[in-house]
Amino acid sequence: TVDTKPTQSGLTEFVGTAPVGDTIGMVIANVDSGLSENLHLQKQFRSLGILSARTGGGPQIMSMDEAVKATNTQVVSIQMPRDTKGGAGHGSLIIVGGDDVSDVRRAIEVALAAVPTHFGDVYNSPAGHLELQYTARASEAAHFAFNAPIGKAYGLIAGAPAGIGVVMGDTALKAANVDVLSFASPAYGTSFSNEGILHISGDSGAVRQAVIAAREVGLDLLGTLAGKPKNDFPSYI
Amino acid sequence: TVDTKPTQSGLTEFVGTAPVGDTIGMVIANVDSGLSENLHLQKQFRSLGILSARTGGGPQIMSMDEAVKATNTQVVSIQMPRDTKGGAGHGSLIIVGGDDVSDVRRAIEVALAAVPTHFGDVYNSPAGHLELQYTARASEAAHFAFNAPIGKAYGLIAGAPAGIGVVMGDTALKAANVDVLSFASPAYGTSFSNEGILHISGDSGAVRQAVIAAREVGLDLLGTLAGKPKNDFPSYI
Amino acid sequence: TVDTKPTQSGLTEFVGTAPVGDTIGMVIANVDSGLSENLHLQKQFRSLGILSARTGGGPQIMSMDEAVKATNTQVVSIQMPRDTKGGAGHGSLIIVGGDDVSDVRRAIEVALAAVPTHFGDVYNSPAGHLELQYTARASEAAHFAFNAPIGKAYGLIAGAPAGIGVVMGDTALKAANVDVLSFASPAYGTSFSNEGILHISGDSGAVRQAVIAAREVGLDLLGTLAGKPKNDFPSYI
Repeated sequence: TVDTKPTQSGLTEFVGTAPVGDTIGMVIANVDSGLSENLHLQKQFRSLGILSARTGGGPQIMSMDEAVKATNTQVVSIQMPRDTKGGAGHGSLIIVGGDDVSDVRRAIEVALAAVPTHFGDVYNSPAGHLELQYTARASEAAHFAFNAPIGKAYGLIAGAPAGIGVVMGDTALKAANVDVLSFASPAYGTSFSNEGILHISGDSGAVRQAVIAAREVGLDLLGTLAGKPKNDFPSYI
Repeated sequence: TVDTKPTQSGLTEFVGTAPVGDTIGMVIANVDSGLSENLHLQKQFRSLGILSARTGGGPQIMSMDEAVKATNTQVVSIQMPRDTKGGAGHGSLIIVGGDDVSDVRRAIEVALAAVPTHFGDVYNSPAGHLELQYTARASEAAHFAFNAPIGKAYGLIAGAPAGIGVVMGDTALKAANVDVLSFASPAYGTSFSNEGILHISGDSGAVRQAVIAAREVGLDLLGTLAGKPKNDFPSYI
Repeated sequence: TVDTKPTQSGLTEFVGTAPVGDTIGMVIANVDSGLSENLHLQKQFRSLGILSARTGGGPQIMSMDEAVKATNTQVVSIQMPRDTKGGAGHGSLIIVGGDDVSDVRRAIEVALAAVPTHFGDVYNSPAGHLELQYTARASEAAHFAFNAPIGKAYGLIAGAPAGIGVVMGDTALKAANVDVLSFASPAYGTSFSNEGILHISGDSGAVRQAVIAAREVGLDLLGTLAGKPKNDFPSYI
């Protein structure tokens, strides 16, 4: 049998892990230029913070959105592999830059601590998943990843298989007066994930109402395939 | 333990599910324009029918091919996520449009009912899969997805891992005089699936003969990896 | 229960399998031109050798690198599906061409025999994987896939989730004086895999030193998620 008990790390690069999503946080104090030139970073920095996960996605991006608000760091890269370990969604590789390693270390610490919260409205069943995210005030990571206007409320509404996300999106737009930022689907704006994902912006009450209405419809539809979808952390929306 | 017993849905959008592939069918009677403008539809319609699955792919497309023959609807979108829940193939998001929700609802009902039939020549083993599809008379969905000439016989020949599909394709083209529509492979024409997929057209007897010859070779080759591949529904070709 | 005992094949196209990765080897003595024109081959040949796998990737490419050194064949295609059966990496479809089927058959035999060796530095845990590859003298397959300069030492350093590969890459470039060929990540140069992959070239001692330093850091970091990663074949680097 495989021994899955996590081991300790004494590396200076290691910051920590989150208890969900196989999420790991690391820093590089003074990154080799031959590497950083090949990372497709929006801007070059001496110190990098790295948040990466097998499952998620949205939760890690929203967690980093909080982290950059709290620290002197800048999002320089967000990449979404096709992953979730046989599931329908994405993993993540998120990089922030800073002039000082203590800044990026702090950002990664804040992000890791926020990851469980942002899994609160991720619902799984054997047949698929739903993901809902909400913030009253989008910041740099939501803007970088999803074009969310900074300082305005932002909502993410996703369903898998993708058709469920289409109906969730329609429900959301009928529930409240919000702006459509984009709608991602398997061949447009995802990494071939089996998701329909609506990104919305607007007045915080309207965005929240739209997300909540979509969640109800998504739970109902996904349940018809393989039973009631379950979240592993407390709902936060 | 997870309770996987499907739940009922009373939503007007819910049409039904198929007993394979985590396949769900839904309709939207009067789609929000902010959503439909972002769905990359070939044409805008008031009413949409949505067929979506975690596994397949070909079976759902062939099922919709029958459905549009039988109803006053038009295929407006076919997207293929990389899925099959850890397997080597695709899931699906198929959208049809119509002027009346009763038309699109009927199309989704017909398609859902046809899905098990079209899994009849999908063979699985722990090492991969084969998929064969045949129709004597291709219609709109096969044309939209695979460029099958409408009204002519069409055949799909797929193997995973992809190299098996290459040998199946060679076998098919040597077995009968058919036209090659295309050959899809991991980097060309798939969503990075691990499949080799030959699409053929021509005289119905020749297409059928090519598909049957390819099936025999595929079963033989895939069996060498992890045992005899099995279909879960009766073979229909 | 599924009977997974591999079956025998008497087909002339069948060469063999490897005991890892669901890897199969096949040949086509005289390929149908309608097929080969659609395979996106770098050059057309009468006889094709086909190596294809659900898991890997790097091991199969390095194995074919040895095989083309040993035979009168040419690499004509390397495609990398997103696969590993729910894991974070790639499968493979590798095609070699030759004027004589005995040449391509020999190449496939040599490659199949070399596959277990090249899994020696693939380490898996429930949370992800590491892959290290090294050759003192890159040949055609490493050049075709990774732009490795022919005749020089080449190293591959990969970690999943992708952020681990970023830190492994930084470690490698600080450990020894090597040339960066490229760095692949989920959105750049992979098939949306959840990997960070550094490709290096240079003096054989330096490349080896860089790979070994990266391996140590990767084992340490990946272990923090779900325990000590394990290789299934003896380490060869």
